[in-house]
Amino acid sequence: MSYLIGIADTTFARYNMASDVIQVFNEYHPQIRYIRYTVPGIKDLPVASLILFKKYECDLVIALGMPGSADYDKVCAHEASTGIINVQLKVAKHIIEVFVFETEGKDDEDLKERMKDRAIKHAYNAINLLLYPNKLQEKAGMGLRQGYQNAKPL
Amino acid sequence: MSYLIGIADTTFARYNMASDVIQVFNEYHPQIRYIRYTVPGIKDLPVASLILFKKYECDLVIALGMPGSADYDKVCAHEASTGIINVQLKVAKHIIEVFVFETEGKDDEDLKERMKDRAIKHAYNAINLLLYPNKLQEKAGMGLRQGYQNAKPL
Amino acid sequence: MSYLIGIADTTFARYNMASDVIQVFNEYHPQIRYIRYTVPGIKDLPVASLILFKKYECDLVIALGMPGSADYDKVCAHEASTGIINVQLKVAKHIIEVFVFETEGKDDEDLKERMKDRAIKHAYNAINLLLYPNKLQEKAGMGLRQGYQNAKPL
Amino acid sequence: MSYLIGIADTTFARYNMASDVIQVFNEYHPQIRYIRYTVPGIKDLPVASLILFKKYECDLVIALGMPGSADYDKVCAHEASTGIINVQLKVAKHIIEVFVFETEGKDDEDLKERMKDRAIKHAYNAINLLLYPNKLQEKAGMGLRQGYQNAKPL
Amino acid sequence: MSYLIGIADTTFARYNMASDVIQVFNEYHPQIRYIRYTVPGIKDLPVASLILFKKYECDLVIALGMPGSADYDKVCAHEASTGIINVQLKVAKHIIEVFVFETEGKDDEDLKERMKDRAIKHAYNAINLLLYPNKLQEKAGMGLRQGYQNAKPL
Repeated sequence: MSYLIGIADTTFARYNMASDVIQVFNEYHPQIRYIRYTVPGIKDLPVASLILFKKYECDLVIALGMPGSADYDKVCAHEASTGIINVQLKVAKHIIEVFVFETEGKDDEDLKERMKDRAIKHAYNAINLLLYPNKLQEKAGMGLRQGYQNAKPL
Repeated sequence: MSYLIGIADTTFARYNMASDVIQVFNEYHPQIRYIRYTVPGIKDLPVASLILFKKYECDLVIALGMPGSADYDKVCAHEASTGIINVQLKVAKHIIEVFVFETEGKDDEDLKERMKDRAIKHAYNAINLLLYPNKLQEKAGMGLRQGYQNAKPL
Repeated sequence: MSYLIGIADTTFARYNMASDVIQVFNEYHPQIRYIRYTVPGIKDLPVASLILFKKYECDLVIALGMPGSADYDKVCAHEASTGIINVQLKVAKHIIEVFVFETEGKDDEDLKERMKDRAIKHAYNAINLLLYPNKLQEKAGMGLRQGYQNAKPL
Repeated sequence: MSYLIGIADTTFARYNMASDVIQVFNEYHPQIRYIRYTVPGIKDLPVASLILFKKYECDLVIALGMPGSADYDKVCAHEASTGIINVQLKVAKHIIEVFVFETEGKDDEDLKERMKDRAIKHAYNAINLLLYPNKLQEKAGMGLRQGYQNAKPL
Repeated sequence: MSYLIGIADTTFARYNMASDVIQVFNEYHPQIRYIRYTVPGIKDLPVASLILFKKYECDLVIALGMPGSADYDKVCAHEASTGIINVQLKVAKHIIEVFVFETEGKDDEDLKERMKDRAIKHAYNAINLLLYPNKLQEKAGMGLRQGYQNAKPL
């Protein structure tokens, strides 16, 4: 069985997370194919995801965004996330949201590493949701993190 | 009459609440059966619940999550909760949300006990909603709590 | 003409507002009948209300809840209220939300009185919406309050 | 062509804005007719507006409310406004929201004047949306205000 | 292929961003045509956009607004933005939201320049989404900004 994943990303972000995601997806070719759709900012990601589902018949979407460092950007991220959940409820399919706040980085290099790490780990989450759901169940309650070290299970 | 309950949980959480929930459900076997679906984080729980209702025809879902300790995690929890309510309004069926904030625990042991307690008590709430709704009505306005001691009725 | 009112309430609340509401409704029997549905907490009230409309064909629902005193409870109340409005927009029927925050009471006795007062006055609001809408119009802009003394009209 | 405008208002407000709105609408009689629906508070305005559209077939609704001065009232206003926007998206028709926060008035007299001014100016906005949309376009970007003096265009 | 873009704007804003947007669109005439719809404030933009899609069959909408400088205006902007995303999810088409907060300007002149810059750059984003989506993909992760200088890619 073969799956099509939509990659939605933005021109606002300061790092091209899609390139890392694509590398992961290529490991699973041809079982996993992808299609990419770039929009200006994170608030355009909900409709971009919906278009990827409706027009391009994707089975899952990975939505990549970097909310800026202003206070207002937190509100934008909240609006985008709410929209991304609403799209999932419209189509009953997963959108893996990969948001890295600009403020999460101690400096530019740290921010870049965090974006790379979160993008790659969530690309594998996307693969697992489609191909190996049992792998996720085995890790339930284990404190897995993306963009950071895993937490300690209790 | 037999009911199927969906258990949605995450790899982000630091304790496996599903194991406690399953133990409660097993007491009611075969009247209660369950199916489990694990996702990366709490923002994936709304669509996971919807899939449990639509694809697996669950009668009720119990959604288990542990929002992290960062400020941003409160926003994520709010988005997840809003989505969880929206799913219920789509299918007209209950989702029992079992969220324990990482910050609710005084230390790791306390957090674990709180998660265990809330999971178990809400598992019984799920059972009661399906099998014994009168038990809930008898306790209306009685200050019942999950994860904490009950409050004093006025 | 006869109406069926749904009463949705919780085991979390520390006072049984439904008993006061039922007393008011009984004054209007048999023109007003009621059915009651108790759930664990306020975030379960939206779907409970929807079930009261869809499965039990209620004409109006009165939703009774007491948000707790923690900061997080304000968020829960906001999520519940948003869901309660969404249910109304699904069925085009009124839900009278009767929420009393635990923090509104100066002490236990004061909290109880406020809950009683708000429940009773809103029970009459429910009756008026169904039976005597003109009574509400006559009081438009008059500063009516529930749980508190009326405000002064300007 | 003749239009029916719904007026939704509350018993919570401390001033009867509907009387000012009706005076404006009467200037346009019989081209503009109105119907009025009074509810307890602002959180009842979304469903009241929906009923005005669905049951009474209004072409536009003007929703009049005065959120109180407590912190919680800001949350209620936000919930009501969100619901009011959702109703508009259900029916693809305008609701002119006329909310005056009790805290906007320096004193009772000032609050009353602000409510009167905002109600009247928005009543004309309602008329213009239905009858003279070009009048609005001519004023685009001109800093028009309701309840306050107009702002200076840049 | 020819596209119709809806321009939704407000009488509340203190600068006429539509005039800048129209100038950009005219460069692409007749491939791009436009229709304009002016409403009182930003909270009227969601339904205005929906009407532009449904009644006038627009392919994309650009929504222009200037939230005021009061705290409450941030809430209004959040409500408007949420509604604008919801409209996009109803029609599966893009709305480019161009909001400039009155507080973003250091003074009137600076505010005007920012509004002009953001409006023009987003007008090109609208064009690219319809005609040249590859141009956006080439700039993915490049830190593009509207109303400000571009950010540095990591």
